[in-house]
Order: sequence, then C-alpha cells, then structure tokens
Amino acid sequence: MKLASLKDGRDGRLVVVSNDLAWCAEARHIVPTLQAALDDWSVVEPSLRNLATDLEHGAIPRNRFHEREAAAPLPRAYQWADGSAYVNHVALVRQARGAELPDSFWTDPLMYQGGSDGFLGPRDPIPLADESWGCDLEAEVVVVTGDVPQGASREEALAAVRLVGLTNDVSLRNLIPAELAKGFGFFQSKPASAFSPVFATPDALGSWWRDGKLHRRLMVDLNGRPFGRADAGEDMTFDFGTLIAHAARTRSLGAGTIIGSGTVSNRDAHGGPGKPIPDGGVGYSCLAELRTIETITGGQAVTPFLKRGDTVRIWAEDDRHHPIFGTIEQVVEAR
Amino acid sequence: MKLASLKDGRDGRLVVVSNDLAWCAEARHIVPTLQAALDDWSVVEPSLRNLATDLEHGAIPRNRFHEREAAAPLPRAYQWADGSAYVNHVALVRQARGAELPDSFWTDPLMYQGGSDGFLGPRDPIPLADESWGCDLEAEVVVVTGDVPQGASREEALAAVRLVGLTNDVSLRNLIPAELAKGFGFFQSKPASAFSPVFATPDALGSWWRDGKLHRRLMVDLNGRPFGRADAGEDMTFDFGTLIAHAARTRSLGAGTIIGSGTVSNRDAHGGPGKPIPDGGVGYSCLAELRTIETITGGQAVTPFLKRGDTVRIWAEDDRHHPIFGTIEQVVEAR
Repeated sequence: MKLASLKDGRDGRLVVVSNDLAWCAEARHIVPTLQAALDDWSVVEPSLRNLATDLEHGAIPRNRFHEREAAAPLPRAYQWADGSAYVNHVALVRQARGAELPDSFWTDPLMYQGGSDGFLGPRDPIPLADESWGCDLEAEVVVVTGDVPQGASREEALAAVRLVGLTNDVSLRNLIPAELAKGFGFFQSKPASAFSPVFATPDALGSWWRDGKLHRRLMVDLNGRPFGRADAGEDMTFDFGTLIAHAARTRSLGAGTIIGSGTVSNRDAHGGPGKPIPDGGVGYSCLAELRTIETITGGQAVTPFLKRGDTVRIWAEDDRHHPIFGTIEQVVEAR
Repeated sequence: MKLASLKDGRDGRLVVVSNDLAWCAEARHIVPTLQAALDDWSVVEPSLRNLATDLEHGAIPRNRFHEREAAAPLPRAYQWADGSAYVNHVALVRQARGAELPDSFWTDPLMYQGGSDGFLGPRDPIPLADESWGCDLEAEVVVVTGDVPQGASREEALAAVRLVGLTNDVSLRNLIPAELAKGFGFFQSKPASAFSPVFATPDALGSWWRDGKLHRRLMVDLNGRPFGRADAGEDMTFDFGTLIAHAARTRSLGAGTIIGSGTVSNRDAHGGPGKPIPDGGVGYSCLAELRTIETITGGQAVTPFLKRGDTVRIWAEDDRHHPIFGTIEQVVEAR
C-alpha cells in the first residue's frame, strides 16, 4: 500500500495511491490525515488496504495522482530523528578535517533530533536566504513508526515500522562547524527537509525491504546530471531496527515518528571512498562527501554548494525504472 | 486567559481555566485541542476569551479544575526547542569540568532541538529505568508561539508569543558527556519533559511578563524541602524574543512551537555562584548546578541525582502565594 497527502491545510488530505503512482483515491471517509491514520493504525489500516485493493482494480472513483499536488506525506510530524547509519560517510568527513573516527562510531549509532514542525513537499523549492550558508542536499531513506515502547529491542522496533520513504535532508554546511562546536547539536544548520511524494508499507516493497534496510539504489541527479547511484542496502552499518531501538532506549516514541538513515554512502569496490559517476563510481548522496574527497585527494574542495536555480532530483526505482516513492524534485530559490 | 488540556486521548481536551485555577469550562464546542486552537488562533482566540470571561463571572456551566486530571497543555507538539539563556548556569557547569566559556556564549544563544512526540502531565511520574543514568530535574520557563516567519526580528518573535508556562525538562546527566562528545547533541539524555497544568496568555501575567521574560521566582521543592527560589527575570542573558528569533534564523517555526528558557539560575549578590537556600541563597533549578558548585568548592559532588521515590515540585506564585500556572509535582518511579 502506498499513501500520500495532497496539499490541503496544515496536515494535508490523505489519499491511497496506486502501486504505479498513476492514480489516487480519497481516504477522507476513513481518516482525514496520515497522522490520524498512524494514531489509530490497527483500526484504520485494514480499511485503507481495502481501498488500495479497490483502487488497483479500478473499482472505485479515482483521480490522477500528480506529484506536484502532494505535500510531504506527513506535512508536519511530532518527531524527526535522523541517524547517520552509513559510517563510511562519517569516516570520510572526519578524515577530511583531520579528526579521528572513534571506534565506538561503528557500534553506537549517531542520531540527532531534527525539527519536525514543517516539512517541504516533494516539488517545493528549497528556500535559501543566504547562499553563503553552504546549502547541501542529503538523500536518505526514512521510515515512519507506530508507537514504540521505551527499551524496545531491535526486533520490536522493526515490527513497528509502518511506512518507508525518502527524504532530502537539506543542510546548511557552513553553519555546522560553529553550531557543533557549541556542543548542543544541529539547529540553524538544519532547515526544513523535503520528503518523497509517497510512503509505502514495507510489504509493498517485497524483497527490497529486508534486514531493516531498503535494498535499492538511491538515485540523485543534480542539474539534470547523474550525481548519486549509491545502493541504500550496502554499507548501512546500523539498520532501521537498530536506529529505532537506539532512539527508544530512554523514552518511548510516539506514532508518526520519522527516523532517517543519514546520507546514503557506498565505498568503492576496493574499500576506498566512492568515485564520481563519470569516473565509473556510484557517486554521492550529498555535496559534502564529494567536497571531502576532493579535499583529501586534491587539498581543497572544488565542487560548490547549491546555488539559487540549482535543481535536485532524488528517487528510487523498481526493476522497470519506475519511481517507487515518486520523485523529490526541488529548485533552490531565494526565499 | 489560562488554558489546560484534560487527559483524553493523544492530544487531550481543551478547557479554559479560571484565573484562580479553581474552575474550568469545556472549550470543545469552539475547538477540540490546544494545538487546533494555535493552528487557527486569530479566529479561535476571541471565542476562547469570551468563554474565559463567562467562566470568571460564573455565567456558564463549569467544573472543578483538578490539576491531577491535566495532561501537558500540549500533550505532544510539533516542536520543542530549548535554549540555555541563563548563561550563569552554563558558565558554572563548564568551570566545574575545567572547560573555558567562549565569549560568544554571551552573544549567541545555545539551543537544542528536543523531542516533542510525547510529554508528561504535571502529576505524571518520571519514569526511570536505570538510576545510574543520573536523572535530574530542570525547572524552566517556556513559551508557545504562533507561526513565526523565517528571519523574524526579536520584536516580531515576541509578538508571536501566545502562551507562557513552566517545564520540568528531565535530563539524564550521566548520559550527556558521551552523547555530546559524539557531536550531534542530546538525544537519549533528554527523555520526556513535563509541563505545568496551565499555560497563560501574556496579558494574564500583567507586569510579570515584560521584556520577553517572566519576572517571577521559580519555586522548586525537592522531597518537600525548598531547593530553588531563583528569579526567572534575573540573569536571563537572552530573552524569549531573542531565543525565538535565533530558532527562526534559517527556517520558519510552526504554530505550537514550544521554546524553553533553559535552567533558571541566579548569581549571588556578589556575582559568584548562587548559594543553597539553607545558607541564605536562592538555591538552584537543577541538581547539576549544586553538584557543580560542590565540585568547584569541595573537589567533588556530594548531592546525589534523583532516586526512585524522590519528589519534585515546580511552580511560580502570584503575590498571594497562589500558583500562577498550577504545580508540577512528580515522583520518580521505575518504569
């Protein structure tokens, strides 16, 4: 089952979307919003699944699904917690600034509490008041959970995964060093993230969803050129079950919590940093990683951060090259 | 006007509370929840104020207001961002561990993104799975904002303050050093916070609310003994307008955002660290500050963190010693 929220007020209007993303059916008579569905999932899910089946069979009134009309599936959420599960990415970033990677980073997940009071829709521009802030994309996989009790095991946490999707976790790189130096984590350096038009239930992903990971390539184009094709199922040191259990160690998590994977990143075949796509590699899921490799190999970063007018596309494909979750496609604009 | 949410489902049931906290009136016919009221404040506020006036006059059906029946006014929220505006507190904590206080800490607010997916009610126990985590109270002032546009000035930010209240920002002190060393801020070290039974509109506070600060003492009792009597209007380096503008520098803030002051802390009359109440001082709003002073003066902390069975009370008083926002009163319990 695939779900989306059409733009409508602060929380959107829930629709069920056909598997090929061509059609949608209003779910209002069942539940008005995705958050309301997650709040009462065991009751609501069967009705939504019936609606999805009827939609696939063309048995009910349906509308064309236009991704440009979609808000983020959760236009605002009660929790957005972003891991950094591709430790390869973290190791590279630290190497570039000459910082050691503590051994614990391979066993204890990094996670930050993100702002969740307002997200960007998949076609909303990225508002950027000041280019000197160093705006970057970060292509990631996300899951949405039901209620997770404090102290949940990895297995219990995995069983609480309700939906899977993608995000562009926009970051303001040049604000990060000073902010992290203050010791309280990210705040101004993490403006609103954008999400894929559609989130899917794990069963809709079949074998692409296993071991708490999404086993598909994360496709990233920058200004129309391939920039990233990393496999989200590879090099993910901490699966989503482990990330959710980490988040729930000292407190329960409310239904509708969004957990992010962190920037997807693959090593190259020889265990070194990944290569750009024109050089035969799988590329990158953020500019900072490329800039980091440029710094390590050439002494300085040459690829600029995002400028106004730049376009970012993020998606994942099925075997026939159709987007699974729809496509995030954003232009950087002056706010 | 004073507002509360009676325990009822995930978001509570909004009631208007009389100024003396003795009575309440259901607001359901106007708007079901406090979040819904904040989402549509300009439309809803006049009706709620009429209800408050009728309640004061005894002109409508009313019920006794029992603080034990109250949830947090926002039982869950889309954003909880906590500042650290009493830089005196920060300076002491750093002094105890031999770390310098950067000059920028006096001009650039510290703020962390907190978890907001589920808050404790004012009489809910503090669930503590493991005493070795070093559980601490943190008594703070909070405000709830309406929508705040990105780049708002301090004055615009102050104009967006809808409600004022108190929190117990529970912290797990022994988890903080390792978590902050990872560089991504607090996560496991900040379990659910509790809030005062009632939040008040700024006008209901009269001259106690001015210059973006609450000019009342924050009363903290620990196991029935006075522990803190610090004046929240004193030594607040960054007022709430400055804190909100800081949060909104790179992104807008959604209606219902809760902004915290950080632990209230006063210097003593001679500019040194505050003294305990038995020694004639105004005491502390968290155990860590007392432990810090013990470390500075005696070489080691002697006051323990919270243990199961310990009781914390937090409130602020009007001139007749009646609680303004009701009382947070929590017992530490095994979860």
